[in-house]
Amino acid sequence: MEDFLFGDLGSFDSVRAFLPEEIEAESMRIIRGELSRMGISVPAENEKVVLRCIHATADFDFASNLVFSKDAVSKAVSLLKNGKPVVVTDTNMALSGISSRFCASFGIEKACFMADDDVACASKKSGLTRAACSVDKAVRLFGGRPVFFAVGNAPTALVRLRQLHDAGIFTPAFVVACPVGFVNVVQAKELVLSAPFDSIVARGRKGGSSVAAAIVNALLYS
Amino acid sequence: MEDFLFGDLGSFDSVRAFLPEEIEAESMRIIRGELSRMGISVPAENEKVVLRCIHATADFDFASNLVFSKDAVSKAVSLLKNGKPVVVTDTNMALSGISSRFCASFGIEKACFMADDDVACASKKSGLTRAACSVDKAVRLFGGRPVFFAVGNAPTALVRLRQLHDAGIFTPAFVVACPVGFVNVVQAKELVLSAPFDSIVARGRKGGSSVAAAIVNALLYS
Repeated sequence: MEDFLFGDLGSFDSVRAFLPEEIEAESMRIIRGELSRMGISVPAENEKVVLRCIHATADFDFASNLVFSKDAVSKAVSLLKNGKPVVVTDTNMALSGISSRFCASFGIEKACFMADDDVACASKKSGLTRAACSVDKAVRLFGGRPVFFAVGNAPTALVRLRQLHDAGIFTPAFVVACPVGFVNVVQAKELVLSAPFDSIVARGRKGGSSVAAAIVNALLYS
Repeated sequence: MEDFLFGDLGSFDSVRAFLPEEIEAESMRIIRGELSRMGISVPAENEKVVLRCIHATADFDFASNLVFSKDAVSKAVSLLKNGKPVVVTDTNMALSGISSRFCASFGIEKACFMADDDVACASKKSGLTRAACSVDKAVRLFGGRPVFFAVGNAPTALVRLRQLHDAGIFTPAFVVACPVGFVNVVQAKELVLSAPFDSIVARGRKGGSSVAAAIVNALLYS
């Protein structure tokens, strides 16, 4: 079954021999050390999330740009582990980055509607973005259950969540808000920060699907 | 079919009204302007790749850390558009981030074997990482065709490609090398840079699945 391997092909002096499970621990040790040398201290409750974002990007800006609502980590962990929420993402990349194994073990369903034909059709007819239409579809389908939104790409998904909240239609159980980009991204994140959502927000321009997945995974692994 | 929409829910002054297709153009205009103000000039042939990496990360380090082998962009574009290669990734995230529509239009197959049972089994038996085993599986399956590797996560995938090359077994048609991280990542990228591969490498620690997908998409969209 595994006869596709080419076998032992030697090694390179420059590459250290680590077991896969040691690499993450060594990475976290390096990140902690560099944060310490930079004089940056991260509150203990947020450390796993912050470290995993830096681990996913090698970008230490995430030590300062992540904004946590009050008790965000403990609330999110409790929701994920005990609340059987639906985790809704705004890209299939983020969806595939979130640990399926951990989701299954906690009875968490994951979904992303961005590539659905009816979403494309609704977007064309309404003039709303596909991301906004995807949010509406998720709320219609899952609105009776706790919904955990993980948004790593589309600012309009965040705008739509805020609009639905302000209209009294729907409030998400938790929002990870980390679209990346240069247009409307900063502003859309501020709309989450000024809403009474339980949330983790990557303030500013930075973020992305990898960061969204890293935050959710850090919470799942807690 | 699309009766899931909640309709017009107003707007926010802070969020500018752009058509989705305008947002990318506006983002690129902003990125070009900031690069210019920073005094950074990017060679015209590499501009689309560099800009799309910055667009995907909001991290201007990608203006300086991307290393292109000679004529890398024109060779990669020609391979993707005329060579019907297989694009092999080292994460399902990168796989799902690469445009399926563009791949289909150019007759490009995409594959990722990281989650395969036989790869897990081979890894356990051999002591090689799953990423290395995935490379071997791809080479066995596709080695008679041009293979375009897009590596955004696993340094050991790059190490394996170099080992297979040095052993005279296989040479990839193109390598996008942008694992992110703190352990063996820098060194594994240098093994690509010192090999005679046609490649685009994100030198240093930074990269990731989003960056790997952004580079391949920039080439596909060229």
